[in-house]
Amino acid sequence: MKIKDIRVIVTSPGQNFVTVKIITDEGIYGVGDATLNGRELAVATYLEKHVVPCLLGRDASRIEDIWQYLYRGGYWRRGPVTMAAISAIDMALWDIKAKACNMPLYQLLGGASREKIMIYTHAHGSTIEETVEAVVQKKEEGFQAIRVQCGVPGLDRIYGISKLNSGPRPDGGFLPDEDIWSTEKYLPFIPKVFERLRDVLGWDTHLLHDAHHRLSPIEAARLGKDLEPYRLFWLEDAVAAEDQENFRHVRNHTTTPLAVGEVFNSIWDARDLIREQLIDYIRTTSCHAGGVTGLRRIFDYAAMHNVKTGCHGPGDVSPITMGVNTHLGLWVPNYGIQEFADYCPQVMDVFPSTWTHNKGFMHPGDVPGHGVDIDEELAARFPYERAYLPVNRLEDGTLWHW
Amino acid sequence: MKIKDIRVIVTSPGQNFVTVKIITDEGIYGVGDATLNGRELAVATYLEKHVVPCLLGRDASRIEDIWQYLYRGGYWRRGPVTMAAISAIDMALWDIKAKACNMPLYQLLGGASREKIMIYTHAHGSTIEETVEAVVQKKEEGFQAIRVQCGVPGLDRIYGISKLNSGPRPDGGFLPDEDIWSTEKYLPFIPKVFERLRDVLGWDTHLLHDAHHRLSPIEAARLGKDLEPYRLFWLEDAVAAEDQENFRHVRNHTTTPLAVGEVFNSIWDARDLIREQLIDYIRTTSCHAGGVTGLRRIFDYAAMHNVKTGCHGPGDVSPITMGVNTHLGLWVPNYGIQEFADYCPQVMDVFPSTWTHNKGFMHPGDVPGHGVDIDEELAARFPYERAYLPVNRLEDGTLWHW
Amino acid sequence: MKIKDIRVIVTSPGQNFVTVKIITDEGIYGVGDATLNGRELAVATYLEKHVVPCLLGRDASRIEDIWQYLYRGGYWRRGPVTMAAISAIDMALWDIKAKACNMPLYQLLGGASREKIMIYTHAHGSTIEETVEAVVQKKEEGFQAIRVQCGVPGLDRIYGISKLNSGPRPDGGFLPDEDIWSTEKYLPFIPKVFERLRDVLGWDTHLLHDAHHRLSPIEAARLGKDLEPYRLFWLEDAVAAEDQENFRHVRNHTTTPLAVGEVFNSIWDARDLIREQLIDYIRTTSCHAGGVTGLRRIFDYAAMHNVKTGCHGPGDVSPITMGVNTHLGLWVPNYGIQEFADYCPQVMDVFPSTWTHNKGFMHPGDVPGHGVDIDEELAARFPYERAYLPVNRLEDGTLWHW
Amino acid sequence: MKIKDIRVIVTSPGQNFVTVKIITDEGIYGVGDATLNGRELAVATYLEKHVVPCLLGRDASRIEDIWQYLYRGGYWRRGPVTMAAISAIDMALWDIKAKACNMPLYQLLGGASREKIMIYTHAHGSTIEETVEAVVQKKEEGFQAIRVQCGVPGLDRIYGISKLNSGPRPDGGFLPDEDIWSTEKYLPFIPKVFERLRDVLGWDTHLLHDAHHRLSPIEAARLGKDLEPYRLFWLEDAVAAEDQENFRHVRNHTTTPLAVGEVFNSIWDARDLIREQLIDYIRTTSCHAGGVTGLRRIFDYAAMHNVKTGCHGPGDVSPITMGVNTHLGLWVPNYGIQEFADYCPQVMDVFPSTWTHNKGFMHPGDVPGHGVDIDEELAARFPYERAYLPVNRLEDGTLWHW
Repeated sequence: MKIKDIRVIVTSPGQNFVTVKIITDEGIYGVGDATLNGRELAVATYLEKHVVPCLLGRDASRIEDIWQYLYRGGYWRRGPVTMAAISAIDMALWDIKAKACNMPLYQLLGGASREKIMIYTHAHGSTIEETVEAVVQKKEEGFQAIRVQCGVPGLDRIYGISKLNSGPRPDGGFLPDEDIWSTEKYLPFIPKVFERLRDVLGWDTHLLHDAHHRLSPIEAARLGKDLEPYRLFWLEDAVAAEDQENFRHVRNHTTTPLAVGEVFNSIWDARDLIREQLIDYIRTTSCHAGGVTGLRRIFDYAAMHNVKTGCHGPGDVSPITMGVNTHLGLWVPNYGIQEFADYCPQVMDVFPSTWTHNKGFMHPGDVPGHGVDIDEELAARFPYERAYLPVNRLEDGTLWHW
Repeated sequence: MKIKDIRVIVTSPGQNFVTVKIITDEGIYGVGDATLNGRELAVATYLEKHVVPCLLGRDASRIEDIWQYLYRGGYWRRGPVTMAAISAIDMALWDIKAKACNMPLYQLLGGASREKIMIYTHAHGSTIEETVEAVVQKKEEGFQAIRVQCGVPGLDRIYGISKLNSGPRPDGGFLPDEDIWSTEKYLPFIPKVFERLRDVLGWDTHLLHDAHHRLSPIEAARLGKDLEPYRLFWLEDAVAAEDQENFRHVRNHTTTPLAVGEVFNSIWDARDLIREQLIDYIRTTSCHAGGVTGLRRIFDYAAMHNVKTGCHGPGDVSPITMGVNTHLGLWVPNYGIQEFADYCPQVMDVFPSTWTHNKGFMHPGDVPGHGVDIDEELAARFPYERAYLPVNRLEDGTLWHW
Repeated sequence: MKIKDIRVIVTSPGQNFVTVKIITDEGIYGVGDATLNGRELAVATYLEKHVVPCLLGRDASRIEDIWQYLYRGGYWRRGPVTMAAISAIDMALWDIKAKACNMPLYQLLGGASREKIMIYTHAHGSTIEETVEAVVQKKEEGFQAIRVQCGVPGLDRIYGISKLNSGPRPDGGFLPDEDIWSTEKYLPFIPKVFERLRDVLGWDTHLLHDAHHRLSPIEAARLGKDLEPYRLFWLEDAVAAEDQENFRHVRNHTTTPLAVGEVFNSIWDARDLIREQLIDYIRTTSCHAGGVTGLRRIFDYAAMHNVKTGCHGPGDVSPITMGVNTHLGLWVPNYGIQEFADYCPQVMDVFPSTWTHNKGFMHPGDVPGHGVDIDEELAARFPYERAYLPVNRLEDGTLWHW
Repeated sequence: MKIKDIRVIVTSPGQNFVTVKIITDEGIYGVGDATLNGRELAVATYLEKHVVPCLLGRDASRIEDIWQYLYRGGYWRRGPVTMAAISAIDMALWDIKAKACNMPLYQLLGGASREKIMIYTHAHGSTIEETVEAVVQKKEEGFQAIRVQCGVPGLDRIYGISKLNSGPRPDGGFLPDEDIWSTEKYLPFIPKVFERLRDVLGWDTHLLHDAHHRLSPIEAARLGKDLEPYRLFWLEDAVAAEDQENFRHVRNHTTTPLAVGEVFNSIWDARDLIREQLIDYIRTTSCHAGGVTGLRRIFDYAAMHNVKTGCHGPGDVSPITMGVNTHLGLWVPNYGIQEFADYCPQVMDVFPSTWTHNKGFMHPGDVPGHGVDIDEELAARFPYERAYLPVNRLEDGTLWHW
């Protein structure tokens, strides 16, 4: 089964997605997600100009060989652009493999280890009371687990939740917003949010919170301790993570469970974190961390060390990644949770998907492959529109972690 | 696809093998190897009495769940008997899965990463010259890699190569031979064997040697250094390995590549060895270390640390394990080598196999599944016959490592 | 004194026990316990088919040599089945040795270091109040130390205490129950149990609790911290223990004393835990961890590192193990505590024992040997009945640690 | 001084280069190198589509702020594509800054620490004698230090030196060559090359060798030991370096100096290598590792730990990078060496440069800025032509490190 054609499709039905479609000479095709928020076209060029010419005519069944060809053979390894490209190719090839087997992808991984996978959704407000309302609403919709962000008094925006860019520029695209941040305003405030939430909600809802890399290790340690009474499901991205040792002091000071990994693209980014059990959930996701092949290896390594999975999801990934993650999640012995937020209907029209969610759980569906497709004709109606995640500055102007 | 029946078959067409055959309600069946040399019936009972009743009626496609059911659910984890039983079930289930996919097993693992896999064979003699002759013969048969053992002057038997038991007892079975060992006779002698071999053979044949756990760390370090001029492919089982730290001093003293693992049954037995890169080849094998599921995880972990595979083979495993190992070897990115020794024709009649070997390389074949079956009728003609590996004593009578 | 006969006796006077009886040519005999809950027949076969033939005719006084013969000579070392078999042989040989000396076993170990050994018993209830009642009752019976388990609201069964299997199958045996587990329901609840218990009982009773391997390291750390106000004697099996490093983070976060070891079968399973003082009590038991010979070495190593003994007891061991443990406990300098639960009278009829318990303490008795025998005729009336410990699943179906 | 325009120029006067030209409203402009061999267009797109729009109008003097804006603000950090883009922007801004100061760049770094910087060049042959000739020739040209590669008997190509692609495809571009590699042929051969070289050259020439990531740690250790008699200046890229711990065993076994880093793009890639002094030379280069800002920090950290500089040079970098590296080299206290190979005249026409080399040393020149410009008109005559570094396979087909 030879690779006959590979299409790289950039579409923006509400947000930008980069999709790879691999077509074989036997007519079976597969799709993969290469979305890298704010850097979409770099990945698309990486694929179109540098990857596609090398893969045409190759045997689509040799997934491992192609993975290594792109990883080792590219010489300049790792990094978000490279790994997003590899991820998409890998996901499409596993889609093809599973279709050729006439089985849903999770069957090839080892079959289902559970009936359905727990997801968490997002809720936020600009004040505590608005936030409580938003969380209650999500709970009423049936979610078991909710990530809560709240506006911090004295800071304009609710951090970590918005990607709205301030108005299109004359050239038609957007530029990154510049948010303002103050750790000293944030740090004593956040525990009050969760204190109030526990008063209202009680204890049968999983609450998550994301510090978005903005704290120093000792600040994160303090926050973790301060949040212990409210029993968070996890504290996410407590510190910047290029230096995995940043988590050591956090870990020593608090038993609040820790999660990190959406910014990771290879097992090496998380190796020490996992090996030293400095985190509880690894948040790498299939479209950034090497597809099925890459993520399976990270998950197996995490399982050795009692680290559970907690894949990153929208809005940085397309429905294809959600599908692949759900297959991995149904199989993986150390499943934790999956990030989830509904896509707008237009997105789901472009990406017809068999995965479903209901009352806080997902299932990948049981069609052969990973169950997500792309409607190319419809996709073509939504051309790329420049858009960015925000950047972040301290009050004195220092460029900070967003 | 439900598990309808599981048969545990003990047969001795020359040597004892324990085989599991899982039959599904859809007619697809799979076979797995549960052979544990000298402890065969304990595994057979473990399977028949404790495992089989729990699996009947279960969904054969949920391989991971069944693996965890037997591993975690058995409460008393790990160990050679338990893991041989789990291994056999897992291999049979992957055989079924691959047949249901209508693909050879290696395709489900990620496809072929190479055209064929290099194997090594055995040669030995009671003197250096006999050994040279035996090695030359194997080289002429086309082998690229040969494990060489040689009789040590002053010791009766060529160690590490024989499993002949001294005569059947009145009750019809055999008892373990008791060999005599002297490290002080062995240690200065072995380098001479390899000096002579390099003189005769030159440098284009891989030479391997097995110290069979008999050395202390510093003795092994010395041997490794003394062998450096002869550039061994590996020095195997240099020291006893319950304490993985035993390898640290060996590693510090020599660049002779090190291999160990035939006695391991889980990733925990090798975790520190791999993590600290104390070895170069991990010799765990599918019928002892958790089947496809277990071995894949060990191999992936090894790959992270530049440790290559070097699966243990005959005579402790059946042709089924050889088949499964060959599929894993064709896929795994960090392939090293596979131990190989021909089975007698009678064994191959009992276990019809698609794997082939030629000029020092193997291929698993391309039929759906792992490609090895059992002829139950024929198997029934060779009932179990008690047999053991030898035990080993020092010259003063001390019970030593064999 | 030669070994003339070895009988392997499986009997089920309420629960399954595997017993070894070694008979010498001088008429002295000894008994040992080879019980491995749920895997009894695998051990029995291991003994009957693979061990017994090798030992007939050997000198019963060479206990160390036979231990090494079975451990090193079996080639495939360690694991629950192998070590249960070795343990039983070793216990029986020490029984013989002590009888030959005409002394109680503890005298051969070095004599008594104390008058009696403290034991702990079990109490549990499905609610806090039921649990309090059960604990009060045990206290009134004179126990100084009580392990407390309590039903968790929202979970059906009291975990970690029951071995009832759900009804015999058509083939006459039982299958493992599948329990349901939720760490998030358990974790905040358990401290309330002990808060209430301290209110009712005061502070002069040792309270123990068993988390049964179900927690992740950080969850166990949290539990340990939350339990600190109630001054537990120990928190048992906080995390799964294949990876001994799992205990590092638990240890860093809490001063609640930690115990583990019922699932261990060799010193290597506990080496790092002891060397790094990650635990306070080592719970290995004589019938699983190498008999008198194996357990004495583990205890000596533990003493080096200020770790005390806390042997596992019923329901996974027979009265023979209780006897042997009591002898070891009377001697060992670093004695901690011994798990205890009364056997039903029928069991004690099958295993006539000299050990006694009174007001929370045991004594092994002073007859020659270890003081426990087996009534073979009576034993024969209670044939093996298939039975299992439960397995455990998370609420989503994931196979979990029981 | 505002950024008025940024041009991204792809040109191929013999090989592909990506250049950034930043033009300010004050008329001063600067140029930077964003070349990433084989992935050029991905970087160009990253710059044009995602970086340029964000920088227009910004203050060109705030180099640190812009660096952090692109590094932290891009959210998805590190990786070869991202860092090549940042590097080019940074180099251009420092060019502007130095021009605005009317000083050569090295003056802004702290001034010259030496008169000139030592460089090493390349020599190779397909046989030992050809190699000796090539080295002698380079020595006669005045080079003090020469990197030597030699064809390995039994392997077709001289590894690590060639980038010729096998013929243009129908679509006009090239595809990666697939080389064949055999460590076992290479390892015993290479010491003979250097033995012969020392015989011919004597000891007053620095000899370097590049193993190009192809060895396992223990193989590299062996090679390092075997090369000790020939006193190499360094052994480069001994092992693959995602796992920095790979160098530990190499370091323990040999005193041959070690160099690595051309594949690194951030300080985190080398942190452990430097902190543990596992290497002697850090080979990061300005166009891959964050420009002047990134490289200065890596060099300062290296100096703390007695690691010297050894920047990667052609053919993966343009003359701009050579210029920037030379400025850094003239200043940095822990200077080691700089890789050098002449560009073809056409390249130097496109990139008019003030740096000079003479008798094995370079100087950056003394014009304001970094001294390298781009002739845009000329550049436009050489459009991008698809080209790749080779990939590498073992003899059995395994995709290997190139």
